Amino acid sequence: MKTVACVAATAADKPLEKSTLDRRDLRDDDIMIEVEYSGICHSDIHTVRGEWGPCHYPMSPGHEIIGRIVETGPAVTGFEVGERVGVGCLVDSCGECEQCLAGQQQDCLNGNVGTYNSKDRRDGSITQGGYSTHIPVSQDFAIHIPESLDPAAAAPLLCAGITTYSPLARFGAGPGTKVAVVGMGGLGHMAVKLAAAMGAEVTVISHSHAKEDDGRRFGAVDYVATGDDPRALDRLRGAFDLIINTISAPFDAVDYLRALKPHGAMVLVGLPPEPMKIPAGALIGGGKILAGSNIGGIPQTQEMIDFCAEHGITAEIELIGADQINEAYDRVVDSDVRYRFVIDAKTF
Amino acid sequence: MKTVACVAATAADKPLEKSTLDRRDLRDDDIMIEVEYSGICHSDIHTVRGEWGPCHYPMSPGHEIIGRIVETGPAVTGFEVGERVGVGCLVDSCGECEQCLAGQQQDCLNGNVGTYNSKDRRDGSITQGGYSTHIPVSQDFAIHIPESLDPAAAAPLLCAGITTYSPLARFGAGPGTKVAVVGMGGLGHMAVKLAAAMGAEVTVISHSHAKEDDGRRFGAVDYVATGDDPRALDRLRGAFDLIINTISAPFDAVDYLRALKPHGAMVLVGLPPEPMKIPAGALIGGGKILAGSNIGGIPQTQEMIDFCAEHGITAEIELIGADQINEAYDRVVDSDVRYRFVIDAKTF
Repeated sequence: MKTVACVAATAADKPLEKSTLDRRDLRDDDIMIEVEYSGICHSDIHTVRGEWGPCHYPMSPGHEIIGRIVETGPAVTGFEVGERVGVGCLVDSCGECEQCLAGQQQDCLNGNVGTYNSKDRRDGSITQGGYSTHIPVSQDFAIHIPESLDPAAAAPLLCAGITTYSPLARFGAGPGTKVAVVGMGGLGHMAVKLAAAMGAEVTVISHSHAKEDDGRRFGAVDYVATGDDPRALDRLRGAFDLIINTISAPFDAVDYLRALKPHGAMVLVGLPPEPMKIPAGALIGGGKILAGSNIGGIPQTQEMIDFCAEHGITAEIELIGADQINEAYDRVVDSDVRYRFVIDAKTF
Repeated sequence: MKTVACVAATAADKPLEKSTLDRRDLRDDDIMIEVEYSGICHSDIHTVRGEWGPCHYPMSPGHEIIGRIVETGPAVTGFEVGERVGVGCLVDSCGECEQCLAGQQQDCLNGNVGTYNSKDRRDGSITQGGYSTHIPVSQDFAIHIPESLDPAAAAPLLCAGITTYSPLARFGAGPGTKVAVVGMGGLGHMAVKLAAAMGAEVTVISHSHAKEDDGRRFGAVDYVATGDDPRALDRLRGAFDLIINTISAPFDAVDYLRALKPHGAMVLVGLPPEPMKIPAGALIGGGKILAGSNIGGIPQTQEMIDFCAEHGITAEIELIGADQINEAYDRVVDSDVRYRFVIDAKTF
C-alpha cells in the first residue's frame, strides 16, 4: 500500500480539494503509473456532483490519464518501466464474456469496472481515478502512448478521442464520405480532426460562427451555424453519409436525420436530457440509422492512439494546475473551454 | 395502346370494382407481362383509401406481381417471351444518381416511380399496378422468377419478401446470430422464413400464442407472447443481435432496444402512427442501432428471389378471385389473414 497525493471530492455539493489516497500494492499483472497529465471530462463533473446518481466519496475522478510506468508486477510482459502509457475509462472487465472476447470491454456482460467510482472486481474496493500522482492498472487496460505525441494534449484522446473515433470507424468515415460533426466542444473538436484525418469531407454544424476558424483549422471544409439561420439544416437535406452528434442539450433529431443521405447514420455521443421523438418514417424513408456509441474497447483505443500518432493528432487543451480544477469545472459547464482542460499532475 | 381488364378504385371511400385501363405500346426497353398473380399489400389499402395522402383515381393498385412475358420491345436483351417474371414496388428511376448507380433505386435522388399512383418519368401518365391482366415494364425493373417457385405464393416476395430480406442481409443475419421478429403478419412471417434460411436462430415476439405453431413451422426456435405476460420482454434483455420490427401500432421502442445485445440493431419496417420516444441513453449504452428499411433495390430483389428459389421459400397465401378483393381488404385491416392474399389474375 502506498499513500499518494490526489484531488478528491468529498460530497456532491462541495468543491474538490487536495487530499491523499491509498494505492494498492501491485498485483502480478499490474503496472504502476506515475501520472503526468490528467484530462477533465464533463462526465467527471456529472459524477462528482451526483448528477448521474449516488456515488462513493471521497472520490478522485479522472479517466484521461497519461504517465510513465514506474514499476511492473511479475507477470507483466507487454510493458516496461519507463514507458509512457495511457489509461481511459476502463480498468477491468470479466475477460470471459462474448463482449470481452470481442475486445468490447466497455460492454462487458458481467459489468465493466470504471476507472473511478466503480467496485474493483478482485478486492471490492472503490476505484480512484487520475486526479492523483500514481495509479496502478492491469496491463490489459493500459495503452501504449508513442513518444511522438505531446503527452498533455494526448490525455483527452483516452476518452474524447476514442468516443469519437469508434463511431467514425464503425460507420465507415473515410475518403469519399461526407461527415457532419454537430457541436464542436471537447468531443466535437476531436471528431473533426479524426474524421478529416480519415479522409472524410467534414462539415461542422454549430450554433454560432464563433468557432469557425478553429473548425477549418481542425480540417473541416464547411461550417454551418444553425443559430444564425433557422433554415440552415433545410439546405443540408441528404448531404451526409454520417453525422456524429455530440449535443447534450435538447434538439430535434428529425432535422438532422433529414440531413443524411439514404442509408446514412447519425450517431449520438452526447446525452440530451429528454427522450427524442422519432417518427418511424424518418428512419424508414432512405433506410437510415440512428445509433449511439459509448467510448470503445481496449484494442480499438490502442488503434486510435496509433492512428493519432501516425497523423499527428492530439486535443486542443488548456493546461491547468490542481488548484484550478474547481474553476475549470464551472467553465466546462459554461462551455467556456477550447477544447479540453488537462491537469498537470506535478501540481497534485 | 391496349385496353385491358383490371380492378380499380374510383374514390377513397368506395369499394374497388372491375374496370378497364389502357396499357401503353411497348417502349424499346419494355416487356409486356401477362399477369398471373397479384398480391395484396396493406399499403395498397392505405393508398386507395387516401390514408397516405391524396392520390389519382381511378387507380388499379398492386405491386406484388407475377406473370409471363408475352411481348418484348426491340432493345430488350435480358428477357424472352414466355419467361416468368416479377414486378415489385418500382417501375422506374433516374438511373443516373449515386443511389441508382448503387442499385438502390428505391432511394433514387430524383424520385423513384412507383408501380401505381406515380407519375411516369417519360410520358407523365399515372402508373397503374398489378390488379390487371397485363402490365408493361422496363426490363431494368423486372425480376427473373425461377420456375421452381410456386408463382402464386411467390407474388408477395416482390414486396413483403424484399422488405424483410433487405434489413436481414444488411445487418448480418446468419449462422451464429440471434434474430427476433416482432409481429408475425405478412412481413413478419416472411422475416421468420428468410432469417431461418439464412442460418440465424429466430425468435418470434407476438401479442398472443395464436400463431406459435406456424412460427415454429416457418423456422423459429422460440416464440414469446407479450400479451400474456407483460414481463416477457424483461426476460429477453440482451438477447438479440437483430430485431426486425414489423409492428404498425404504437409500441415502446425502449423495451425492444433493451432486448438487443450490445452493438445490436432494431430495424423498423412497420409505420407506427405516433413518433417513438427514444432516450439517447437507450442507444448509447451498448452502442445500439435503431434503423428503418424501405423495400430494396432491383439487384437485391433479384438476389432475394434467387435465395428463395434456392431455399424453397414462398409466402403463405390465401388465393382469391377479383370479386373477393374488397372483403380481403377488410380482413387485412382486421389482421385476419394467414398471411397474404393473392389474387388470381384470370379473374380480373
